[in-house]
Amino acid sequence: MKEYFKVGKILYEGPQSKNSLAFKYYNKDELILGKPMKEHLKFAMSWWHTLCAKGQDQFGQNTMVRTFENEDPLKEAYEKVDAGFEFMEKLGIEYFCFHDRDMAPEGRTLEESNRYLDEVSDYVLEKMQKTGIRCLWGTANCFNHKRYLAGAGTSPNPEVFAYAAAQIKKAMDTTKKLGGKNYVFWGGREGYDTLLNTDLQKELDHYATLLKLARDYNIKSGLNAQLLIEPKPKEPTKHQYDFDVQTVIGFLKNYGLDKDFKMNIEANHATLAIHTFQHELAMARVHHCLGSIDANQGDLLLGWDTDQFPTNIYDATLAMYEVLLNGGLETGGLNFDAKVRRQSFTDEDLFLAYISGMDTFAKGLRIAAKLLEDKVFESFKEKRYASYQRGIGAKIEKREISLEELSEYALEHDQITNESGRQEQLEMLLNQYILENSD
Amino acid sequence: MKEYFKVGKILYEGPQSKNSLAFKYYNKDELILGKPMKEHLKFAMSWWHTLCAKGQDQFGQNTMVRTFENEDPLKEAYEKVDAGFEFMEKLGIEYFCFHDRDMAPEGRTLEESNRYLDEVSDYVLEKMQKTGIRCLWGTANCFNHKRYLAGAGTSPNPEVFAYAAAQIKKAMDTTKKLGGKNYVFWGGREGYDTLLNTDLQKELDHYATLLKLARDYNIKSGLNAQLLIEPKPKEPTKHQYDFDVQTVIGFLKNYGLDKDFKMNIEANHATLAIHTFQHELAMARVHHCLGSIDANQGDLLLGWDTDQFPTNIYDATLAMYEVLLNGGLETGGLNFDAKVRRQSFTDEDLFLAYISGMDTFAKGLRIAAKLLEDKVFESFKEKRYASYQRGIGAKIEKREISLEELSEYALEHDQITNESGRQEQLEMLLNQYILENSD
Amino acid sequence: MKEYFKVGKILYEGPQSKNSLAFKYYNKDELILGKPMKEHLKFAMSWWHTLCAKGQDQFGQNTMVRTFENEDPLKEAYEKVDAGFEFMEKLGIEYFCFHDRDMAPEGRTLEESNRYLDEVSDYVLEKMQKTGIRCLWGTANCFNHKRYLAGAGTSPNPEVFAYAAAQIKKAMDTTKKLGGKNYVFWGGREGYDTLLNTDLQKELDHYATLLKLARDYNIKSGLNAQLLIEPKPKEPTKHQYDFDVQTVIGFLKNYGLDKDFKMNIEANHATLAIHTFQHELAMARVHHCLGSIDANQGDLLLGWDTDQFPTNIYDATLAMYEVLLNGGLETGGLNFDAKVRRQSFTDEDLFLAYISGMDTFAKGLRIAAKLLEDKVFESFKEKRYASYQRGIGAKIEKREISLEELSEYALEHDQITNESGRQEQLEMLLNQYILENSD
Amino acid sequence: MKEYFKVGKILYEGPQSKNSLAFKYYNKDELILGKPMKEHLKFAMSWWHTLCAKGQDQFGQNTMVRTFENEDPLKEAYEKVDAGFEFMEKLGIEYFCFHDRDMAPEGRTLEESNRYLDEVSDYVLEKMQKTGIRCLWGTANCFNHKRYLAGAGTSPNPEVFAYAAAQIKKAMDTTKKLGGKNYVFWGGREGYDTLLNTDLQKELDHYATLLKLARDYNIKSGLNAQLLIEPKPKEPTKHQYDFDVQTVIGFLKNYGLDKDFKMNIEANHATLAIHTFQHELAMARVHHCLGSIDANQGDLLLGWDTDQFPTNIYDATLAMYEVLLNGGLETGGLNFDAKVRRQSFTDEDLFLAYISGMDTFAKGLRIAAKLLEDKVFESFKEKRYASYQRGIGAKIEKREISLEELSEYALEHDQITNESGRQEQLEMLLNQYILENSD
Repeated sequence: MKEYFKVGKILYEGPQSKNSLAFKYYNKDELILGKPMKEHLKFAMSWWHTLCAKGQDQFGQNTMVRTFENEDPLKEAYEKVDAGFEFMEKLGIEYFCFHDRDMAPEGRTLEESNRYLDEVSDYVLEKMQKTGIRCLWGTANCFNHKRYLAGAGTSPNPEVFAYAAAQIKKAMDTTKKLGGKNYVFWGGREGYDTLLNTDLQKELDHYATLLKLARDYNIKSGLNAQLLIEPKPKEPTKHQYDFDVQTVIGFLKNYGLDKDFKMNIEANHATLAIHTFQHELAMARVHHCLGSIDANQGDLLLGWDTDQFPTNIYDATLAMYEVLLNGGLETGGLNFDAKVRRQSFTDEDLFLAYISGMDTFAKGLRIAAKLLEDKVFESFKEKRYASYQRGIGAKIEKREISLEELSEYALEHDQITNESGRQEQLEMLLNQYILENSD
Repeated sequence: MKEYFKVGKILYEGPQSKNSLAFKYYNKDELILGKPMKEHLKFAMSWWHTLCAKGQDQFGQNTMVRTFENEDPLKEAYEKVDAGFEFMEKLGIEYFCFHDRDMAPEGRTLEESNRYLDEVSDYVLEKMQKTGIRCLWGTANCFNHKRYLAGAGTSPNPEVFAYAAAQIKKAMDTTKKLGGKNYVFWGGREGYDTLLNTDLQKELDHYATLLKLARDYNIKSGLNAQLLIEPKPKEPTKHQYDFDVQTVIGFLKNYGLDKDFKMNIEANHATLAIHTFQHELAMARVHHCLGSIDANQGDLLLGWDTDQFPTNIYDATLAMYEVLLNGGLETGGLNFDAKVRRQSFTDEDLFLAYISGMDTFAKGLRIAAKLLEDKVFESFKEKRYASYQRGIGAKIEKREISLEELSEYALEHDQITNESGRQEQLEMLLNQYILENSD
Repeated sequence: MKEYFKVGKILYEGPQSKNSLAFKYYNKDELILGKPMKEHLKFAMSWWHTLCAKGQDQFGQNTMVRTFENEDPLKEAYEKVDAGFEFMEKLGIEYFCFHDRDMAPEGRTLEESNRYLDEVSDYVLEKMQKTGIRCLWGTANCFNHKRYLAGAGTSPNPEVFAYAAAQIKKAMDTTKKLGGKNYVFWGGREGYDTLLNTDLQKELDHYATLLKLARDYNIKSGLNAQLLIEPKPKEPTKHQYDFDVQTVIGFLKNYGLDKDFKMNIEANHATLAIHTFQHELAMARVHHCLGSIDANQGDLLLGWDTDQFPTNIYDATLAMYEVLLNGGLETGGLNFDAKVRRQSFTDEDLFLAYISGMDTFAKGLRIAAKLLEDKVFESFKEKRYASYQRGIGAKIEKREISLEELSEYALEHDQITNESGRQEQLEMLLNQYILENSD
Repeated sequence: MKEYFKVGKILYEGPQSKNSLAFKYYNKDELILGKPMKEHLKFAMSWWHTLCAKGQDQFGQNTMVRTFENEDPLKEAYEKVDAGFEFMEKLGIEYFCFHDRDMAPEGRTLEESNRYLDEVSDYVLEKMQKTGIRCLWGTANCFNHKRYLAGAGTSPNPEVFAYAAAQIKKAMDTTKKLGGKNYVFWGGREGYDTLLNTDLQKELDHYATLLKLARDYNIKSGLNAQLLIEPKPKEPTKHQYDFDVQTVIGFLKNYGLDKDFKMNIEANHATLAIHTFQHELAMARVHHCLGSIDANQGDLLLGWDTDQFPTNIYDATLAMYEVLLNGGLETGGLNFDAKVRRQSFTDEDLFLAYISGMDTFAKGLRIAAKLLEDKVFESFKEKRYASYQRGIGAKIEKREISLEELSEYALEHDQITNESGRQEQLEMLLNQYILENSD
């Protein structure tokens, strides 16, 4: 078997290690809150960014130097399978995520595309059985091909709708074959470029119809995956209908789909929607729809999706904090929807980048667990809202009071004293936990 | 009676007029689509920006030179009533909007504040009866006083909740007295400054409770106003729960309140939420909750609420286009939630600014009406989605098809041709209608 | 000769025309302020966006349907020449702009690339002689190839610097051959992705060195073109050294290059730098370095370079206003650095888009000329600063006064009255000129 | 003597301390790179945010509860002096910064204002002599009063120019009296609200004149302070002329003032100009004009100046890294131009906030020193640009080569290999230094 990467197995060497090709924080079997790190952190390799992305940007051609290239796209697909499993095994990553079209190439006809996907996914399945590596989720790429220029489910052309439906069916079938426990929808073209030519009502209705059909098929086909929507506000489209977590919640409720879908939350999509990563996770958590995470990071001073590997310890800590508050992610995990920088074009950079991301989240998990154990923020919050447990507060919580009664109360209690919110102190406490959390 | 403004009645003189103190486009009785302009455009004076705002910003003190000032706040309140009605009459504005605390000053106690409001609003009512000027909507200012530093309905302090409830009750009573057909909620402090000290779940629940109590009182008290929520994503708070139209729709649905509230949409709030004004109007329209408009404009290169007078003809045209598509605003209108620039500190600037805003919307209305009459965009859209009226498209619309059937269809129809979206042409058509719409 | 576009010659039909394939405002020989429109508006076709762009974005493949495609890149280059000249002739566009690599393909060696460029540009020259169409400016594409991943002049690799120098030399030679009167530098990779690996001092020095060498060669080679720098703040690079007009002015001054370069200002780059288009033009104007314009427009709610065709009449009016204040653009012109939307994929859209852009600027020119003739803003400004013509003002302007003397003056003149800035009135006057400027 | 704060002296207790009113990292006499922490970190109290700010925002009134309030503004000024010195002594802060108008109130006349400033600053001087606390810098508030609504040096009214000159003279005199080694200019109103009424050329000229007069007086008066300009792109004004470091450099060069001014760089102003804090510091460093720092932080998802206390360890580390690379700040220091959150309204919060900021910078200093000692980034950079030390690279650096020679070289060396930029690895190395830098 050809070896694609001139890098050996990545081992845990601890925080003092100077070895760039070792984990400093990710110690997979170490128990955190009674559970091994690797179960808290079900890391997944993204097939597209890891095996397919070549470093192209809007102003420049490919830069990546890869050993798994082949003039024949189908042969290249097989090489990517081999390279991908070698990569995951060397990093100790136990899951992967895929789009139909990055696992196997598009053929001249849909039938041929489906056949390619069948063949390559058969081979993937073999590798899975040999290695124990699993599929976290699958999805259909309904945005890259030019047929989707005006949308997939929201295209003004019903033939495009049908084609998207066919791709989704096949991607769901493939996910089932590979034992995926989740299935993702990212509507990169489900939106509009200009309102001047757009029938909003029709597009929203059609999009909901597509999701309903997929939901029905999820059950009928026996896939029974957790369905996930991945919000993003814009890019490539001027406006995307799955703008952010709360927009999607409203949309799903409008069409009676809120019981059927959870969210796959991406850090960079959160910030493009002018929210923090934690905000989107927390909003999903309190609405009981936090499903899975696309672990990456954006640059808040840039206006597009940079999909960088996550290295910000604040973001990783607060993300894992929300995950722990949520009681974990159930079937979900942490997919590295992240690509190496265009200048990080070597194979070694791929390893370095994944190590950085995994270590950052491992450390974030550890800090988050300690923050929770010590109830640093939770006890502050408890105390802050404590007066809602008694007297007028309790009546409000139980809604055993009217506006008139509250008005009467206020007339007699109109000299109010508040408590400090202590933001600066809480931020510094977070710092102390980050800086003093020795391994 | 003292005359506050050294400006006479503003008359319509037509588009060629060189008189800065005349309307060029707002010709109130002229029929547009069979209805007088003034019925399409129920302009309202905002009490706060017009009568109370003094030009202060975060780095500078008051600049406005006003003749209706008085050392005694209560006397000043009466002067503002006189000045306000003089202003509206001179401009031919038939509506006003108010917060409790800009109509009458806050007293030392809630009881005193209520009494002030009763007294001043009695005088307002007198003026209304004399002039025929009406109240478009009322609202309670639950954001300015320091008691609201951590929220009103979302304060961790239930005494604050009670106080807000009392203010809302009183503002609703006052709105009823003044015959207001709408009542507005803007949650400028209903949000969080940091998630580190915030119980999201509790805050969302409490906010919904406050809205429910207000909804109940709206009926019980016989006010029966259209209740309106005014979305804004942030500022003054780091994050506000009423982020944008779709967020609010989801929130209302979550708490079973979606039948009870519509939206009051502000242009500048839309752009702070990285949407166009038209987007927010259109989203409200297709969700049947377009209630009223706060007419102003923001500067898209600045990151805060500038509340400028609306002078952009594109925005006004597309806003009125959505209003016409909506069949008008029912009980709603166009409130100038706009303030003159800090450098436009003279009384005359107040008139010039209102004239600019009214003329811009009048012209926008005229252009929008012509665009609709000629079906410029509507016929393009009809044709664009026409294939959903037949064959596979019709089955999708009726949902008489499954994912499997669509897949079968796609396998036989996989060579797809799309139609151009024609964005550039449509934008130029809009230009032509703007530029060639002679009065 | 093959005809590439099934569209005939585009003629001026006037503002009432319903013919989408006609000019409504661009009437090339009509005199505006005594000069034909076409001399005010030296429109240029951008070779890359018009002949090479295929509609690809970061999430999607090509969409454009073009008739000038060929499997052999060199043959395709010749087809593009034919198509391009047919396009320009049909639109009545008299100039074009080009990068070396969009006019001719990159070969396996630099020598081969140079040879291709020689051959194709010979053919271009032939067509120029036949048609009278001219070259507005040339430039070298030192950003697309992967060798430029870390910069061209600012690459840490001097071999890349040398390669960029060679490309620039050749592009200058070709511009000379084609009679171009300007030569442009856009430093899309001249910047950094992270400061962690960047020696800022070295990179700025190297970049200046490259510009100096080019300046020397401009004279030595007899090209004698006006050299132009095109500012852009970011994208594709995290930070680009030519951030905006004033940054570039400082940079040029630091290296003694300010006499040698002017600016090529792009609307969309201005807004990405959080400036208005007019701001960048005005800053260049008052610093005597307004050279040429890349006419397009961005979407201020999106964070990347959308390069849309310019259809906003405000922007076009205020841009032409600055150009007129500048006494025109001398050797410069208006290059449509704009691409049709991904959904506008037909040949007809190319024409519609250019017509929209040309008409918008033609109308903008007409309005700007009228505003200047009537001295609408200029007389307001004159009056506003008039007190600097006399007394203490005049002394300040001549700097015949010290801080101490000013202090003495102020002690005796400390009760100051200001004049209103009249922003709302001025904005409405602009509206009136836009709306009432009949042709 | 009245004690204003019910908080004792803040002591260093080390990173494990649970005492919120103790330093965990700021150990003032500990040597870092051979110099006591307190000399690296010349922390200054900002008079305005600490003693004058009351928690007002654009939508809400004061929230701060302060013990140093007095109905008589002059008496309050004296109380603030006492409170301020108590505060600095308790925190061990050895410097302060002030505006004329926050140290003493504005009188009815300029003469009276000057007298107040004389009196209060006499008292300040007394306290300085008793405590050893020093003045880091002074400045004049030429933005708050309504006379400055259209600018100070850039006002269209020369009487305003004169008034500003008088204020600056007096503030310079007062800075001299207090032994300040720096004098700052922040041009919050030196810009425009709309270009429609603005003569850019005149305004830039006038602003430069004001700076020249101040520069002359700095010498003539014997103040001999380091003059500093504080860039900010916008807010309160639509556009400010001192947009960012490089804009100011260009401006100063244009008017021959670049030898006379350095920069006072504020973190939040950097991000409003869409730069990182490190970027602005690094740009100033390589241009030899890094003078002093306004230590705070902004929220990158908000569009206005939030002036938060700095708690981000990445920003503090990279800031101190630039300061160390710069060989320190000479006469400059770190002024906390930061205000407690509106909800942090107690006196205790003031202490907690300053402790957070001082600890964050102390830790950042320690990490930065270690990064420099280990040459983590510096050796990477050295290696990265090493090929500029020899061969063709050396010739480029010495500029002993022409475009033609480079072209010849490239023709023979056109197959280029680059090195990886290693961004992900470098980011993780930074993380490791942050996380493993035990005290």
